[in-house]
Order: sequence, then structure tokens, then C-alpha cells
Amino acid sequence: MLTIADHTFSSRLFSGTGKFSHTQLMLDALIASSTELVTLAIKRIDIRQSTDNLMAPLSSLGVKLLPNTSGARNAQEAIFAAQLAREMFNTHWVKLEIHPDPKYLMPDPIETLAAAEVLVKQGFVVLPYVHADPVLCRRLEEVGCAAVMPLASPIGSNQGLLTKEFIRIIIEQANVPVIIDAGIGCPSDATAAMELGADAVLVNTAIASSAQPVIMANCFREAVITGRRAYEAGLGLVSNKANSTSPLTGFLHELC
Amino acid sequence: MLTIADHTFSSRLFSGTGKFSHTQLMLDALIASSTELVTLAIKRIDIRQSTDNLMAPLSSLGVKLLPNTSGARNAQEAIFAAQLAREMFNTHWVKLEIHPDPKYLMPDPIETLAAAEVLVKQGFVVLPYVHADPVLCRRLEEVGCAAVMPLASPIGSNQGLLTKEFIRIIIEQANVPVIIDAGIGCPSDATAAMELGADAVLVNTAIASSAQPVIMANCFREAVITGRRAYEAGLGLVSNKANSTSPLTGFLHELC
Amino acid sequence: MLTIADHTFSSRLFSGTGKFSHTQLMLDALIASSTELVTLAIKRIDIRQSTDNLMAPLSSLGVKLLPNTSGARNAQEAIFAAQLAREMFNTHWVKLEIHPDPKYLMPDPIETLAAAEVLVKQGFVVLPYVHADPVLCRRLEEVGCAAVMPLASPIGSNQGLLTKEFIRIIIEQANVPVIIDAGIGCPSDATAAMELGADAVLVNTAIASSAQPVIMANCFREAVITGRRAYEAGLGLVSNKANSTSPLTGFLHELC
Amino acid sequence: MLTIADHTFSSRLFSGTGKFSHTQLMLDALIASSTELVTLAIKRIDIRQSTDNLMAPLSSLGVKLLPNTSGARNAQEAIFAAQLAREMFNTHWVKLEIHPDPKYLMPDPIETLAAAEVLVKQGFVVLPYVHADPVLCRRLEEVGCAAVMPLASPIGSNQGLLTKEFIRIIIEQANVPVIIDAGIGCPSDATAAMELGADAVLVNTAIASSAQPVIMANCFREAVITGRRAYEAGLGLVSNKANSTSPLTGFLHELC
Repeated sequence: MLTIADHTFSSRLFSGTGKFSHTQLMLDALIASSTELVTLAIKRIDIRQSTDNLMAPLSSLGVKLLPNTSGARNAQEAIFAAQLAREMFNTHWVKLEIHPDPKYLMPDPIETLAAAEVLVKQGFVVLPYVHADPVLCRRLEEVGCAAVMPLASPIGSNQGLLTKEFIRIIIEQANVPVIIDAGIGCPSDATAAMELGADAVLVNTAIASSAQPVIMANCFREAVITGRRAYEAGLGLVSNKANSTSPLTGFLHELC
Repeated sequence: MLTIADHTFSSRLFSGTGKFSHTQLMLDALIASSTELVTLAIKRIDIRQSTDNLMAPLSSLGVKLLPNTSGARNAQEAIFAAQLAREMFNTHWVKLEIHPDPKYLMPDPIETLAAAEVLVKQGFVVLPYVHADPVLCRRLEEVGCAAVMPLASPIGSNQGLLTKEFIRIIIEQANVPVIIDAGIGCPSDATAAMELGADAVLVNTAIASSAQPVIMANCFREAVITGRRAYEAGLGLVSNKANSTSPLTGFLHELC
Repeated sequence: MLTIADHTFSSRLFSGTGKFSHTQLMLDALIASSTELVTLAIKRIDIRQSTDNLMAPLSSLGVKLLPNTSGARNAQEAIFAAQLAREMFNTHWVKLEIHPDPKYLMPDPIETLAAAEVLVKQGFVVLPYVHADPVLCRRLEEVGCAAVMPLASPIGSNQGLLTKEFIRIIIEQANVPVIIDAGIGCPSDATAAMELGADAVLVNTAIASSAQPVIMANCFREAVITGRRAYEAGLGLVSNKANSTSPLTGFLHELC
Repeated sequence: MLTIADHTFSSRLFSGTGKFSHTQLMLDALIASSTELVTLAIKRIDIRQSTDNLMAPLSSLGVKLLPNTSGARNAQEAIFAAQLAREMFNTHWVKLEIHPDPKYLMPDPIETLAAAEVLVKQGFVVLPYVHADPVLCRRLEEVGCAAVMPLASPIGSNQGLLTKEFIRIIIEQANVPVIIDAGIGCPSDATAAMELGADAVLVNTAIASSAQPVIMANCFREAVITGRRAYEAGLGLVSNKANSTSPLTGFLHELC
């Protein structure tokens, strides 16, 4: 069981709503993933209509919503987006994303910490999306973030765990859950992240861009469970030498 | 379902009997792995007693036995070992292992091909353990091997899929099952091998050297299933750029 | 030629003074490296004596000194250290290092930006040591830093270019020189960094911890020159297929 | 100095003649590389004309020629090609290449060993191109090959040192020179191969496919020299922890 703030999750796979070709496919994938936390962006239409296309079906799944501030380019915009989201989605949870650069969408450490500090004071449960920066993760924890979400590789790139050695340090030092976000491209990446000791992973593109998103969502479900169990069971050590598995039958040349 | 020679397997995880601290633990791990094919070495004691410590309990599991020629340093010794094994274990299946070097236990391509050719003619179902050499795998297929077993990294090293790019070529060219053997260190490696399109993986050290072999065996069971399903569903493409998952909320700065 | 602030360097290899077993060895290594910029820490003794063991010999080499703020745990300490260094070493150049964590010595992005802003206003030429964070590098450039110094891997680890994909982005976006710092373990790492388009590399541990620091310093000198020239000449493309180098002599089988 | 058979080389960079846009460019690149051993294929025209376009200019460079058997698909064709080459190029040195598969051009271990044995007996100095297979390399050495040439990655792919861990084993076990062939894509790859302890590298595509082959050839010249010197000087150890380069100025917080 994973606890973030006051909420307990049975599933360590978090997911999102982006890039699916249609809503029903997204819903089926979310069900197959067994995720209990789903991130979604605030869209212009949401504000006007005060009702959301996705709200009703997502609510029916019984998942917790995690509005994100995707598109915010600085702390001010992110704080405003979080406040809008609180109204619209009736939740004080927020995935804090601030990325001034539209090409690689890399997160801004300064604005993220500044916004996190304000939002925590305003009563938000803040889950910041950040570079795999161990010191930044510590500072976000210190200002009261409920978890940290370091990236594996550039968002949507499916490049996998490029930041492995830094994530290892983050996990070693963290007192809040560490959720690996962005760049997880295939189930083996998710398993590997969990084997390192991550508390959860967030996967969206790799599910939505699969030829069969529902099956792939289920694969990620299993991959995350397996990686967590392997971490808890304890992995064998890596060696630089070969190590005979079978007893060497030295007697063969006596008999031949 | 995976078919090798005339036998069909529900499980794509093959396992072994080496390095477990005691027999019951090995049996429990094999059960937890759901493996249907178990490799084992011929031991000196087996020949003298004509009964084997492992035979009875392994038989009770209902798994297919795959005797290996571990310890053989050339074709002659391997052929002799295979013939011994056929008598003892009452099977014409053999995992052909020939490794003249005791330090890294790397397989010998020349002796392996020579022994394979003889053993196939003698009616054996031959599964050769080899370096991840695409041309050698083709030749072993041409002389009638039922599958090929290229290594991921040095045996027992837990280093994972070091030979990934060559295994990719082997899988692309093979007309017989490709079973990844040796070096698979954690469940994510097994999933990654299956995502590449391997037909099965053989895991022994990573299970036996875990602090909790039974749980780890079960993790590998799941890892292999997940990797295969992900391969069949079709993985998303890897990109060099970030790719926004959430629609960018460009309207934020109009409102702020 | 590389220009940082108002200074032009013929050499793109920067070095340091730490970890050498004695001063003469350090000096010989620095000469063999052809470096023109040498970083050094402020030591307690320097303040008391107002003369420094290293100052005189380093001055005789004709290299530019780059005092660093190593040991500073926040902006205030770093600013103070920079001001001390300006007095002691008579230079307004400073390598800004702020690392609150004594185990991995990872830099603090928040304090580093804050200190950089103050120091630039006070007339310092600021070269900040940072995680390979593309957005942070942009911001440091915007507040007037003369260069950015992203890390390759944890300092002193010799692990090489772990942050390659992020350094690629930093180089693509930067308008100031990008100097790869920390973790460069062998000359091939330095060459690889320069092939990516880095403007310079800073190497200290890999030279000082070699069995033969003077020769190794000279190797890094050559490695950096070679990497830069290769970058300027233009590297060939990486391909997923083999590509025959020699014309295939298809006529052979007609003749045999 | 590197000695192969009875010949001593000052340069540890070997090169080739393929893929250059014209002959003069090739010659200029070879001069810039300082190579003393150049491999070239036998072409149909050579046999007919009994004079070769490349022979005269290559001879004027004073380099040793290493005819290769590129295009041979089995031992018989390779032996025939070697004999033809001996006549045409007046040398008993041969680079033995046998690759039945036209797509990836991976070498055939069985045919290569068979041909090597015959050619050695016929008085050839045999340098076989092989997969990075430690046992095969040992066997080629045992039948009298003058060196072994394991591949770094598929030929012409510029993918670099994919087989690093296996090359490490080959070098540890070899009593003849180990020359890394195929796949070296940039100077840093060549340096890295030499840092591992390789005796030489063969580079062709990465030079010929550069935008500026002459400069790139010279870069590889330097890269190989640097890697060798670094290997001989002794590289520092890789660590999992950071390791402070500068003495930590703990006194700062006393003063601030």
C-alpha cells in the first residue's frame, strides 16, 4: 500500500488522459491499468462550461483526480491553474508542472519550488514534476510537498530510465514517496524503476501511443506490481564474472 | 503458446536447479515460477546411483526436464554427456553447453555446432547455449536445432541484456524459437528480452541468489508474461524530442 | 578559441588543484594539460596567512585562477566565499558551487541561481556548477552568468557522461559557453563531451587519481582537442543497419 | 610499438579504402591518419586488368596493404580470394572476412576458423574479422592467426562499443594483438577501445562518411594515441559515490 498525504493507494501505477484517440479507449485503458490516480490538464473549455467532458466518466471509475498545471510557464500561472483546478475538479491535489520551454518541456526548478511553497501554504497536496535533481527533491520535501516526481527522460520520448543513477540518490534520500514520471516507454522501464525502489510510476504516452492501449495499460499494471515485489524480495547482486549455475561435471573427461 | 520440436509450453519462462540452498526451496521456487521446462546438470552421483536426488521431486512437478551438458569442454564430452543424460533422465532433449574456459564460461561456437549436428542425427532435440552470434544461430538452425539460446551477458553475472542489438538481429532472422539465456539479472531484464520479441527466457541465478527465491520466481513468471503481451500489443516509438502529454494550456497567461 | 566574458582561451580543458599527492606533481600535471584556467578552493589557511601555498606556483604558470566556493551550503556562504576569494586571489572570476549534501555533493539549483544573481550584480564573472538541467542553465544565462557548468555524473565518481541526453539539450539552447564538469573519468569521456558540442570540460579527479597524473593530464589535453576538431569536422551518422565498407565481391562464387 | 607477425607498426590506427567519394580524398585521409596498414577489397576489375587503380597511389604512401576477403560467403571463397590477393597485391597478409548474410554482414565463426586454419598452413599472416566471441578468438589464436579483429558493433553502423564487456574478456585472455574492427563511429569510441587495452582499431566508415574526412582521419589518429597512452598510464577507478575534489570549506558557516 502506498500512502500520499492522507490517501492510500493499492496501485502504484498512476496514469493520465492525454493522447488517446477517443474517450472510451482512454476509459478502457484506465480500467485495465487498475490505476487509482489519474492526472489531467485543465482545458479552456472546462472553464467556460464549468462541466468537463472527462469529469463524469472519470468520476464513474472511482479514481482520484490529479489535475496538472501543464502549460504553466511560471509560478504565477501554475498557482492560478491550481486554484482553477481546485474549483473545477473539487480537489486540493495538484500535479505541479512548470515548463517554460515548449520544445523539450523540461521543468523549471526555481518556479516549481516557489509555486510549491505557496500552494502548500494554501492547503494543496502538491506533487511536483521535476528534473531528477536530488537537492531540488529534498527542498520540495522540506517545503511540504507530499511526493516528488522526477523524470526518467524527456516527457513523451519513451526513452526510458536515462536518469537512473540520480533517481537512485533521490530514493536513498527521500522521506516522501518518489514517483517516476515522464519518459517511461515500455513495461520493462516501469519494472526497472520499481526495482530501484521507486514508490510509483506515472505512465501515459507509452500506453496511449501503443497500437493496443488497453492491453498495454494492463501490461504496465503487471510491470509495476512485479517490479515492486522484486524490490521487496531483494534482487541478486551483479557480478563482473561468470558464475557457474550448474555444477561443473569435471568427471566427463575421465569417462570419455 | 510456445512450441519447441513437438512440445507445447504455456509458460515462456524456463528455469534451472542450480545454486538453491536446499531442494525444497528449489521446488517451491519452480512451482512459483510456473515454468514447464527445467534444466539440470548431470552429476557424478547420478551415474553411480542410477537414481537422482532431484529426479523424483522434479517429476512430481510435472515439468519437462532439460538435461544440460554443463562442464563439457568439447563436442566429444558434450555428446557423451547427452547420451548419459538420455539414459538417466529418459529424455532425448538436451541443452547443449560447451565451455572450455572455467572463468567466464563462454560457449565454444565450433564445438557447439559440431556436437549439435551429431546429436540431431542421433535423434536428440537440441537446444544450444551460444554467444549472441547471428550467423552461428542461423547455422545451428540449419543443422536442425529445435531452438537457439543466445546469452544476454556472462552466465551468472546478472548484468542483463548486454547483447541487445545482436539479439534483435537473431530474432529477426530466426525460424526457430529464440530463448535468452544467461545474465538475466532482474525481472525488468526478462521483460525487456520479451519486449524485443524473444520466445522465452531461461532464468536461474537471479532467482536462486535472491533473498527470497520463491517470490522472485513468481516475479519472473509475471515479468515474462508481461513482456510477451507488450510485444504482441506493440510498443510505442522512441522519440528524440519531448512530446506533450497534456494539452498545453496557453490560455493561462491571458488570464493571469 | 573559446571566449568567456572578456577572456580568450586557447585550451578548452580546464583543470583543478585537488587530490594531487604533492604540489610539484600538480604543477607538472597542469603544465602537461596546457590548461589556461585552474579552479581552486579557498582554504582556512589562506585567510590567516593572506599568502597561499598554491598562489605563487600557480601564478608562475601563467594560468587564470578560478576560485571556487566548494563547501558552501547556501547562497549566503557562497557569496561570502566569493568575496573572500576576490580579495585573496585578486580576481572577480568565481566558480559557484553550492552543495548542501556532503555525500553526493550534488549542487543546489535554488541557492545557485540566487547567489549567481547577486554575484553578477557585484561585478563577478560567474561560472555556476549545476545539475544537467536545461531550464536552470537558461535561467543562469539570463541573470548574466558567463558560462554554465553542468555535471556529467556525481563529482569525483569517474562515471562519465551519464547526463548525455540532457547536455545535448543544454548545448542546443545555450548562448553562453557550456563547460562539462564533474564525473569525466577518462579521456574518451572528454572527447565524447566535446563531440556533443560542449565548449570545454573541467577535469580534476581523473587526472589526479591516475597512477601517472602528468601523462594523464596530457592525454586529456589531446582528448579535448580531438573531440572539438571532430565536432567541427562533422561526425558520420549512426545507423541501425550494417553498411558494407568494402565492395562486395559477388564474383567470387562464379570463380570458385 | 605494435608488432603483428614480423611487422612492427608505429601507428595503432588501421584504416580502409571504402566509401570515399574519390581517390585523392582517400589518399589525403590516409596520410592524415598516419596509418601504416590499409585494408582493401579485391575487385573484379583488379583481376581483369592485373593493375589496380588503388595500388599505385597506396604504394606511394608506404603503407602496408591488407587485402580483405569481403564478399566471401564461406571458407572456400575466402581462401580463393586470399590466394588471388596474394598474387595481385604481392603480400601474404590477409584480413579474413566471411559473412554469408548481406544485410548485417555479421561474420561466420565456423567458416572463419576453417579458412584461418588452411590459410595459416599456406603461409598467410591471417587477421580474422569476428564477432566479439572470447572462445572463438582463443581458437583463432591457437590455429596460428597473427591477431584477432572482434567487432564493436555491426559494420558501418557507427554504433560504437556495444560489445565492450566481451572485448574486455578477449583482451584479458589474448596472447596475440586484439584489433577492434567495425562499428567505431567517432573518435571517442576509438579512445575508449584503446583505454580498454585494445592493441589497435580499424576505422573506415567513420572517416569516409564524415563531412571532412581528412580532418576526421587526423582526429582518429590522435584519439588512438591518446587512448593508448591513457591505458598505459593507468586510469582512475570508477566510484559509486561522489568524491570531493576541493577541500570542503567547513569554516564558511563559522564566518558567515
